Amino acid sequence: MAEGFLKNAWYVAGWASELDTGMVARKVAGVPVVIARGLDGEAFALHDRCPHRFAPLSRGTVTKDGIQCGYHGLTFNAAGQCSANVLGGPTPSACRVAPYPLVIQDRVLWVWLGNPAKADQASIPRFPCFDNPAYRFVYGTIRAKANYQMLMDNLLDLTHAAFLHPSFGGLAYRPKISMTQEGETVFSHYIVSDIDNPEFPEVFWSAHGKRVDLWDDIRWNSPANLYLESGVVLTGRPREEGYIIPAVHALTPATRDETTYFWASALPADTPLKDEDFKNMMSTAFEVEDLPMIEAAWERMEGHDLWDLSPVMLRADAAAVIARRILSAKVKEEETAPGSAAS
Amino acid sequence: MAEGFLKNAWYVAGWASELDTGMVARKVAGVPVVIARGLDGEAFALHDRCPHRFAPLSRGTVTKDGIQCGYHGLTFNAAGQCSANVLGGPTPSACRVAPYPLVIQDRVLWVWLGNPAKADQASIPRFPCFDNPAYRFVYGTIRAKANYQMLMDNLLDLTHAAFLHPSFGGLAYRPKISMTQEGETVFSHYIVSDIDNPEFPEVFWSAHGKRVDLWDDIRWNSPANLYLESGVVLTGRPREEGYIIPAVHALTPATRDETTYFWASALPADTPLKDEDFKNMMSTAFEVEDLPMIEAAWERMEGHDLWDLSPVMLRADAAAVIARRILSAKVKEEETAPGSAAS
Amino acid sequence: MAEGFLKNAWYVAGWASELDTGMVARKVAGVPVVIARGLDGEAFALHDRCPHRFAPLSRGTVTKDGIQCGYHGLTFNAAGQCSANVLGGPTPSACRVAPYPLVIQDRVLWVWLGNPAKADQASIPRFPCFDNPAYRFVYGTIRAKANYQMLMDNLLDLTHAAFLHPSFGGLAYRPKISMTQEGETVFSHYIVSDIDNPEFPEVFWSAHGKRVDLWDDIRWNSPANLYLESGVVLTGRPREEGYIIPAVHALTPATRDETTYFWASALPADTPLKDEDFKNMMSTAFEVEDLPMIEAAWERMEGHDLWDLSPVMLRADAAAVIARRILSAKVKEEETAPGSAAS
Repeated sequence: MAEGFLKNAWYVAGWASELDTGMVARKVAGVPVVIARGLDGEAFALHDRCPHRFAPLSRGTVTKDGIQCGYHGLTFNAAGQCSANVLGGPTPSACRVAPYPLVIQDRVLWVWLGNPAKADQASIPRFPCFDNPAYRFVYGTIRAKANYQMLMDNLLDLTHAAFLHPSFGGLAYRPKISMTQEGETVFSHYIVSDIDNPEFPEVFWSAHGKRVDLWDDIRWNSPANLYLESGVVLTGRPREEGYIIPAVHALTPATRDETTYFWASALPADTPLKDEDFKNMMSTAFEVEDLPMIEAAWERMEGHDLWDLSPVMLRADAAAVIARRILSAKVKEEETAPGSAAS
Repeated sequence: MAEGFLKNAWYVAGWASELDTGMVARKVAGVPVVIARGLDGEAFALHDRCPHRFAPLSRGTVTKDGIQCGYHGLTFNAAGQCSANVLGGPTPSACRVAPYPLVIQDRVLWVWLGNPAKADQASIPRFPCFDNPAYRFVYGTIRAKANYQMLMDNLLDLTHAAFLHPSFGGLAYRPKISMTQEGETVFSHYIVSDIDNPEFPEVFWSAHGKRVDLWDDIRWNSPANLYLESGVVLTGRPREEGYIIPAVHALTPATRDETTYFWASALPADTPLKDEDFKNMMSTAFEVEDLPMIEAAWERMEGHDLWDLSPVMLRADAAAVIARRILSAKVKEEETAPGSAAS
Repeated sequence: MAEGFLKNAWYVAGWASELDTGMVARKVAGVPVVIARGLDGEAFALHDRCPHRFAPLSRGTVTKDGIQCGYHGLTFNAAGQCSANVLGGPTPSACRVAPYPLVIQDRVLWVWLGNPAKADQASIPRFPCFDNPAYRFVYGTIRAKANYQMLMDNLLDLTHAAFLHPSFGGLAYRPKISMTQEGETVFSHYIVSDIDNPEFPEVFWSAHGKRVDLWDDIRWNSPANLYLESGVVLTGRPREEGYIIPAVHALTPATRDETTYFWASALPADTPLKDEDFKNMMSTAFEVEDLPMIEAAWERMEGHDLWDLSPVMLRADAAAVIARRILSAKVKEEETAPGSAAS
């Protein structure tokens, strides 16, 4: 019943900035991955398990030859090949670990677990917001005890804001909802007209007591990488006069029951609001408001697949349902492919 | 090997007083149940899982329409039918959760998980002690990491008091034991004659240094609801001259390995002993003295059924053995019934 | 795939000194064992589970009749036979627990879980170092979340000292390695010539700034009981002029995933170094330096058997590979023996 993970896919394994302070060790779709920046400045990703005594390479050290295992010193280069044995002795060609295609783009570490020949950088969804000097960004990395698709559902159906996020409008958040699809990209659109500016946009874009229109545009790409734009403008005025806050939400399954939830949210570069205060505000929304509900729902599902439990679906679920179907079809295609392309 | 839970049975899901401060969420025989008091004053019990996104309804709010889910606002009435969709849209008849028959009686929340047509309130065991103005009561709710039948065995064989409960007599507690059975109700009787009044009865019924007779009468009803009367009287005098302390012990399986242990114990209404001190005394007996031993025994059983381990049985086990047999026969009958009445 | 435990084997269940303060309760190769010293002074080992209600006997009391269960008072003698029922009633011959052959030798509690007829004390590996008045000993008992064979591998391949143990030489520890085998006993030998005396030997045997030669001789006996001698001498001088530190490392599987790691290490009887400081030094090496790496490797193996993961083996692994093969062959022999001698 339980569906596997997509292998031929770009997963977010971390923030690029994490490499500044050392190696990054993350479980991605069940696979332990280590990402290191070599002394030559080039970053690379390997299976995070020495083939000798199975110690995590991420407990080792970066040397000129690659990642040196911290247990007995075998060293592996960016291609995963054993490149040195500090204690002497041969480094046979059979001594190697799987390398994973790695791309650093839009401040994100992207890894590919499947067939390297299919790893097309052009297929990585873009987050151009990071290049916009009008914004500063705050980042969060959350460990969620829930299947990643539960978090994806949550982001594709913002109606939950009415109940979980008072600062985003609370019960006044009664959006008109629509969705669109372009190839395998799913978009979800929310429009709320003529309401008091909620606490959240007001902190960096004051409506000075006037009524506003709000909109949210959410873009989903498989496996579960989302980009959101939340806008606010005085009621009836064109969107160009308003303000847009972009956000990135990448949901990387660690295991079936645990997800690493990477989020980044923008604030105006010139706002007096401190990064720290803005981050607290966003963290509260995601960690204190969303997460306990999503984890409790996942617990109630007792390991079952969503569809096996015959959920009642509402109109606001349309985008999440389509996204789940696309993902599910891709997994099935991969699992049934002749000669199974995936590792 | 592992036997299922009785479905057509009244389980204690909580104390009636718990509803004064909000909804009650409990796992009963593997089923998550929410009990709420509606704005009309009527209490009701539902499956604690929204059929939309599977959030626990107990994380929501009671409104005029029933329990409103705290995730996306679907609301369910006492019959389990979706009665409102706060965000608009239809409330299809397929949108419902299982309602469970609920009876509030003798200060207890009783729920029935099986076939509602068989839920006969008259079959609920009574605790008339709660109506006796001569008593005050203290209550406890304990989470035990042991199968509920282990706790049932413990209460039906009080000889363990000799080793675990010094304040109940310790090694001087050498009872004459007998048992009786009336239909599916099992009684266990303990008599200890001519001993120094133990610390426990002495705190509220002083024997002024004289010797006493003690007795305990325990009544068991399936699945695992027990009523105890512990008496003390001067040695050789008729029981009417003595004092009786009634107690309720209801053992509700959460899962096979965890039990919610509800207990209530009486103290004389006019004793200067404070409720708090009496509760501490009883809690020590159940949580500090009994529980670690029972949980350690359950751990040693490594998930096996009692009978699979061929236990050596002693005379004092007779009542517990009969109770287990009655329970086991009822479970088997239910599981093999044509068209299985349960659930 | 997962191999069982050797039954016909002497396991270390504890230190003899532990009996001074009460019973010893340990899980040995999956079996809960209680070891007690009777009032007659004789120690004995039993299955740590009362056959009545399955309470651990180790929660009870030692009486003149044996171990009295702390739940309902059944008492078991050194032969495992129920010898008393404190509350009265028969003690049928069927009321018994398995006794295990127990030998106290070289400060260690040795138990045998298999066929008692095969329990030959002469086959217990000896640790005569404990009788040498030139030494004092410090002891440790560590709970490791790793299979016991992982810890055995670690001790048979000391090259990890180069990476994990700076005080043992760190990267200067580049030993010449050899191994020998005598029957089912495996020896691993390490020699490092002409280096600065590392911090560890220096604390009790100062080289006064001169260069030294180091050697380590490790002896392994199945299932996983090891004896180490670490020596130091001025470079080029005969070993007799140097100093030898003996150590005992016994690795007792609790379960497949947990090991009780007993270690004892000698220091010169007349050194001003305090036992406490020496113990801290050794504990740091085993618990802070070794253990996290071994546990992380075991976690990476995700429950798989070592050989199923096709490890790359290096020359330094030779002794560990031979030891694993001997152990594996003995387990297989036992499991396929006609009428399976074990338990």
